[in-house]
Amino acid sequence: MLSLYEYPEKKAWKKLLLRPSFDNSSLEASVSNILREVKQSGDDAVRRFASMFDKVTINKFKVTEEEINEACALVDEDLKSAIQQAKANIQKFHEAQLRVEEVVETMPGIKCWRKSLPIEKVGLYIPGGSAPLFSTILMLGIPAKIAGCKDIILCSPPNREGKLHHAILYTAKLVGITEIFKAGGAQAIGAMANGTATIPKVYKIFGPGNQYVTCAKQLVQKDGVAIDMPAGPSEVAVLADETSNAAFVASDLLSQAEHGNDSQAILVTTSKALADETKVEIERQLAVLPRRDIAVIAIQNSKIFFSKKLS
Amino acid sequence: MLSLYEYPEKKAWKKLLLRPSFDNSSLEASVSNILREVKQSGDDAVRRFASMFDKVTINKFKVTEEEINEACALVDEDLKSAIQQAKANIQKFHEAQLRVEEVVETMPGIKCWRKSLPIEKVGLYIPGGSAPLFSTILMLGIPAKIAGCKDIILCSPPNREGKLHHAILYTAKLVGITEIFKAGGAQAIGAMANGTATIPKVYKIFGPGNQYVTCAKQLVQKDGVAIDMPAGPSEVAVLADETSNAAFVASDLLSQAEHGNDSQAILVTTSKALADETKVEIERQLAVLPRRDIAVIAIQNSKIFFSKKLS
Repeated sequence: MLSLYEYPEKKAWKKLLLRPSFDNSSLEASVSNILREVKQSGDDAVRRFASMFDKVTINKFKVTEEEINEACALVDEDLKSAIQQAKANIQKFHEAQLRVEEVVETMPGIKCWRKSLPIEKVGLYIPGGSAPLFSTILMLGIPAKIAGCKDIILCSPPNREGKLHHAILYTAKLVGITEIFKAGGAQAIGAMANGTATIPKVYKIFGPGNQYVTCAKQLVQKDGVAIDMPAGPSEVAVLADETSNAAFVASDLLSQAEHGNDSQAILVTTSKALADETKVEIERQLAVLPRRDIAVIAIQNSKIFFSKKLS
Repeated sequence: MLSLYEYPEKKAWKKLLLRPSFDNSSLEASVSNILREVKQSGDDAVRRFASMFDKVTINKFKVTEEEINEACALVDEDLKSAIQQAKANIQKFHEAQLRVEEVVETMPGIKCWRKSLPIEKVGLYIPGGSAPLFSTILMLGIPAKIAGCKDIILCSPPNREGKLHHAILYTAKLVGITEIFKAGGAQAIGAMANGTATIPKVYKIFGPGNQYVTCAKQLVQKDGVAIDMPAGPSEVAVLADETSNAAFVASDLLSQAEHGNDSQAILVTTSKALADETKVEIERQLAVLPRRDIAVIAIQNSKIFFSKKLS
């Protein structure tokens, strides 16, 4: 469970807040190797790593129109309308960001402005292993569409039956993704960075992923492909006093803890009573959390700090 | 001199446009080593590498108020007023970017907006070796000030007398840089990424540099320090027809070629006459170019393509 620290001195903060650290040197070596193989052997290498890591044999990476239609029929109506509502909200928000840049005349006759242009080919990586992140398709795909990106491709790891989650395919179609590929992990990043016979090369790669995916994105970036950012590990800090609702505080902490073993959730509070209640709530909510196994490990890295004041 | 290609087939374009490539594996190993040493030994390591690479012994990295005042007295009035004019223009342009973000109500009662906040501590790297880039101080420091960054530090490599160029110190003072340090190369990037006894750690590092600096920025980025982007190598492509002015075309090509040995300048033209005139102009302008030695090498990597049409 969460460790408790009472009024630690300021000079101890840095050490107490250190991220849980993992030795990444072997990770980087194996990801480099995957990227090199994909660059050399293209589809064959992607296929080989899918069979090695995802335990699945993929003949055709590209999802067919037929598969998409089948998947759409499988999504239940409640989920469909929730996804449509989310799409409308996200679209409204991002459309407001489209604006004509103001022209500044810095000196008489010298007119300057910034001009935003769409990136012609972009690739979205959508995790599918421990959770099918169709929300991420909305959050990445909709702005890409509004910006005017021409080719928006998507890679996501297939399950052991060689399929993508039906909600992923439904959402991708709804948003207007150009092509969808059954490919995951570092090999998918390598494929989008270099291009293979079936998976096209893109100019910028977006999206979250596990440590392998994140490491691969950081490595291809050095070869001239842009990335959005290294995603994760997830972190959250909640500041709470005696008026806070312990159930909400616990949910906020768990919402990030469940992202991965390496997540870190921090509670800073002036109230010992709230800390106690929050610990009880975390146990209660953990018991029924679908991603309990992951959150339990992350919660072990997490901490509660008592502080005399919150500001 | 520039190689000439007449109407190359489309399938040959990719190969013809390959960037001049340098083997970076030994570069990365030596930069990693510098960063590791700086992380471990702080100021001592920065001092050791300054003596090794810049052939200068630096006792105190931080530039004193007295040194700044001395430098300001050395900048001649014409340059001062040019720098002040540039400052006014850049400031006017970036101030127009400050705006209150529009609030979007995605659903009744759900109000969303983006909020831009200044990064508290930023570090600017200003090259000083082959050219004192005081223009870069203006272009990086002014937006940082407008954004409201609290600590804006600057690192720049000293010359063999252990000094920074007086125009660099004058411009840094004019812009309102918080602290200025005599430190350059990968060791300066390592110092700003980790902090030393005298050079503070920052959250984001900005600015161009040579291959060592760029490699160091890319490596520290993996450890959680943000960077603006890997700067360079410089590239330019000029499209010109028979109505173009060969002297201007040559200047445009040389303006990027002089950035570094690895720059690449490309001319695409429908006019053989213009290509010939441009070659003559490049020779003429190269003869009097202060950075001739660099530009000559880059021009060897550069190419002229004849094309039937420009669109």
